[in-house]
Amino acid sequence: MMNQTIETMLAHHSVRKFKDKPLSREQIQWIVKSAQAASTSSYIQAYSIIGVTDPEKKRKLAELAGNQTYVAENGHFFVFCADLYRHELIGKKENSDVKDTIESTEKFMVALIDAALAAQNAAVAAESMGMGICYIGGIRNNLPEVQKVLKTPQRVVPLFGMAVGYPDQDTDVKPRLPFEHIYHENEYEQDLEAYEGQLDEYNKEISKYYNQRTNGARSDTWTGQMGKMLSNKTRMYMKDFVQGKGFDLK
Amino acid sequence: MMNQTIETMLAHHSVRKFKDKPLSREQIQWIVKSAQAASTSSYIQAYSIIGVTDPEKKRKLAELAGNQTYVAENGHFFVFCADLYRHELIGKKENSDVKDTIESTEKFMVALIDAALAAQNAAVAAESMGMGICYIGGIRNNLPEVQKVLKTPQRVVPLFGMAVGYPDQDTDVKPRLPFEHIYHENEYEQDLEAYEGQLDEYNKEISKYYNQRTNGARSDTWTGQMGKMLSNKTRMYMKDFVQGKGFDLK
Repeated sequence: MMNQTIETMLAHHSVRKFKDKPLSREQIQWIVKSAQAASTSSYIQAYSIIGVTDPEKKRKLAELAGNQTYVAENGHFFVFCADLYRHELIGKKENSDVKDTIESTEKFMVALIDAALAAQNAAVAAESMGMGICYIGGIRNNLPEVQKVLKTPQRVVPLFGMAVGYPDQDTDVKPRLPFEHIYHENEYEQDLEAYEGQLDEYNKEISKYYNQRTNGARSDTWTGQMGKMLSNKTRMYMKDFVQGKGFDLK
Repeated sequence: MMNQTIETMLAHHSVRKFKDKPLSREQIQWIVKSAQAASTSSYIQAYSIIGVTDPEKKRKLAELAGNQTYVAENGHFFVFCADLYRHELIGKKENSDVKDTIESTEKFMVALIDAALAAQNAAVAAESMGMGICYIGGIRNNLPEVQKVLKTPQRVVPLFGMAVGYPDQDTDVKPRLPFEHIYHENEYEQDLEAYEGQLDEYNKEISKYYNQRTNGARSDTWTGQMGKMLSNKTRMYMKDFVQGKGFDLK
């Protein structure tokens, strides 16, 4: 039952160092066409993809994403955007009042989900061709500046980047939460003790994973990592930004 | 360069009629493990998957999703949820103040994107095994009732369902927006005339597509469809619902 496609997906790990070999036009097309083939809510296609090749723009994006060199140095850099700009134009073209709908939280969710489904197909396409990828949420550190670089109009929010290229490093597959913690049957897990026990079990696994990789220098748990990360109030400007772009208003 | 995985993705079309053959435990596991292998923002894993097998629950969900029979009749039914419930527990466990962060628009976006990336891997896994899938956004018609069926706690929002199974119908691949309309290079398309011209070109293609499929009974354009759909103010309760569940508040 296991096949090449599932094998590719299960082998996923983020790649942060790429060989200096740009993707061909044909490779970019397969990736984007795969992205476009993903499901889209009611055919709405509420996203856009910007491929960045200009070295100066890549350098600037790398800096904005928190000095991540692999944003500039890769085979190709994609930015996935939630996009209801074309739908606003459609409103005028079709003489249809679309304002309330495209400004709704529902359609904000639709645009995010559409963009993410497309992106994951792009990731799988790239990996199936022997490349590595890394999602770059870091562009959300400073979207006002990112939108200047990419010249995105109103009703468009850049969501994340994706660095793609031929891997120049070996990385491990990182263990995920226990199957039974992510996957529930018929209803959400109601037994809090069992649920928290799964987190403890996972902590042991993660702690061992870091320990082995670092010869004992690191042994943090997953809940420890998360507790630390979530106490940092980062990107708290997002609500204002998103609403300023005309999303998630009603 | 084209390979089996890309071929699978390019052949995607929604399937809305399934054979009466439930998925095996092993098949469900491959699908969920593929989902879990997708990238996750800063390792946060902010989603859950609920597999629904109980016939009464499936019937109820089918009704809530607008009487879509394939929600009840399929090989397996998954519901993908944005989930920061475990992260709230982590806050207590690690004595860490996570409230502002998990209530932020940024983390709402992260949870949606995480869930969608996982879902798309699940879709590709199922299709790679010869099954068909259909995303069910219809569960968002009535999330207050859906959450009663699935008993989801605070900090969890069911986003969409996914019906999976062996296809019992032939469906066509639906043409997507022109490549150059979705994919921009270095910056968003600044030439409005070219951009709108692409929509006109696409309209002709879609109109022809419907015409051929229906022997001339239908010839609507894409912008016509969208204009109509977006003039319907549906699911306008979403903002209140999502905020009531503790997301997207600040």
